[in-house]
Amino acid sequence: MADSSLTIGIIGGTGDHGRGLGFRLAAGGHRVIIGSRDAERARQCANALTGMLPAGTPAPDGMSNEAVAEAAALVLLTMPWESDGSAVSRLGPALRGKIVVSCANPIGFDSLGPHQLDTGHGSAAEHVAALLPDSRVVGAFHHLSARSLLDPAADLSAADVLVCGDDDAAKTTVRRLCLAVTGRTGIDAGPLRLARQIESFTAVLISVNRRYRTRAAVRLRHVADLEPVEASGAA
Amino acid sequence: MADSSLTIGIIGGTGDHGRGLGFRLAAGGHRVIIGSRDAERARQCANALTGMLPAGTPAPDGMSNEAVAEAAALVLLTMPWESDGSAVSRLGPALRGKIVVSCANPIGFDSLGPHQLDTGHGSAAEHVAALLPDSRVVGAFHHLSARSLLDPAADLSAADVLVCGDDDAAKTTVRRLCLAVTGRTGIDAGPLRLARQIESFTAVLISVNRRYRTRAAVRLRHVADLEPVEASGAA
Repeated sequence: MADSSLTIGIIGGTGDHGRGLGFRLAAGGHRVIIGSRDAERARQCANALTGMLPAGTPAPDGMSNEAVAEAAALVLLTMPWESDGSAVSRLGPALRGKIVVSCANPIGFDSLGPHQLDTGHGSAAEHVAALLPDSRVVGAFHHLSARSLLDPAADLSAADVLVCGDDDAAKTTVRRLCLAVTGRTGIDAGPLRLARQIESFTAVLISVNRRYRTRAAVRLRHVADLEPVEASGAA
Repeated sequence: MADSSLTIGIIGGTGDHGRGLGFRLAAGGHRVIIGSRDAERARQCANALTGMLPAGTPAPDGMSNEAVAEAAALVLLTMPWESDGSAVSRLGPALRGKIVVSCANPIGFDSLGPHQLDTGHGSAAEHVAALLPDSRVVGAFHHLSARSLLDPAADLSAADVLVCGDDDAAKTTVRRLCLAVTGRTGIDAGPLRLARQIESFTAVLISVNRRYRTRAAVRLRHVADLEPVEASGAA
């Protein structure tokens, strides 16, 4: 059962990725608040999500990003990565001491297709950590396609969520959150600096999706189950 | 059935990764030549591989890297990435017009674990392409663990091989080679510049393997099989 006492804020939550994660988390029993620069737009988005959820599920709320940062115990940053970082740093005081999950993939597109963007900070997640030094920054949810998240018929149990960060307790909390999204605990992928490799791998997934007209998910398969994953690790 | 007319050279093939790929390719019916700076060491390695192969399998040969580059129709570069590139560029004349598969992962290790190294060329594969402008460079076989490759009991069909390159015909040849290694055709991941993302993702796999004491493989699972992968693509 989801820990419904943990209010989850989705900053920039009116985009496809944020709406998709909000839908899955709310469907999993979590209290969700959608955030947007425009509070009215956030409320409309929350209402639309409520219409997609089974009757009896607690309805998501919608607020301004600032109000979400104040109200939530944990936030997901789901807006596209921005080089100036002002939208994130503005939320710093409200997010002090809180778990902040960076979900952004700094990916650019040109005639050769998708490619990794240089954030100047290694990764979007490390950029967030630099902008919010008093928050507990974790990277997660990079590889899930927004269309699949928003498709109630899509079974996401084939997807592994790779979770990275330098705060083990925060990482464990986020790994458990993954249960509501994919049905499986997230994988502890290591320290926050591996966010660079995890974020940029999304360019490979997009490239494969375009070539094969599919929605691919990363699953780490265990060629040698010397010790089963779900029975070990920090969680 | 493998195309046994295609002689596959494994440059730097006495290391674990090269031996493992040589073993799988030879077991799959390919003619394999192991290369080393030291021809005698290459012959010993080839003999050891022969002892691991089922009776009746064509025995791998061992030669100097230079002799392998001359004799083979296609080569795999399986030695660790070297910043000066002299070992690769020396083989340029012998490899003119041939398919050269870059398998190296430029990964460093420190107290925080594995991390991506900056090659100064985007990736090891792009570095090889710069060093061998007259060869047909493809990136592949980055994510397969050497221990699994060398373990005849390890079923690699759980692993996807991501193949990238700018020469579609060369990429198709390498994708078919994957059949002998994992039992499945490699996935066309896109242009060569995505090698950076594919190579560096190995740092994430190593990190997960250490945390969970396993040997993880990447499998791209298809959340939405709009069009089955094996039925589309260039192969």
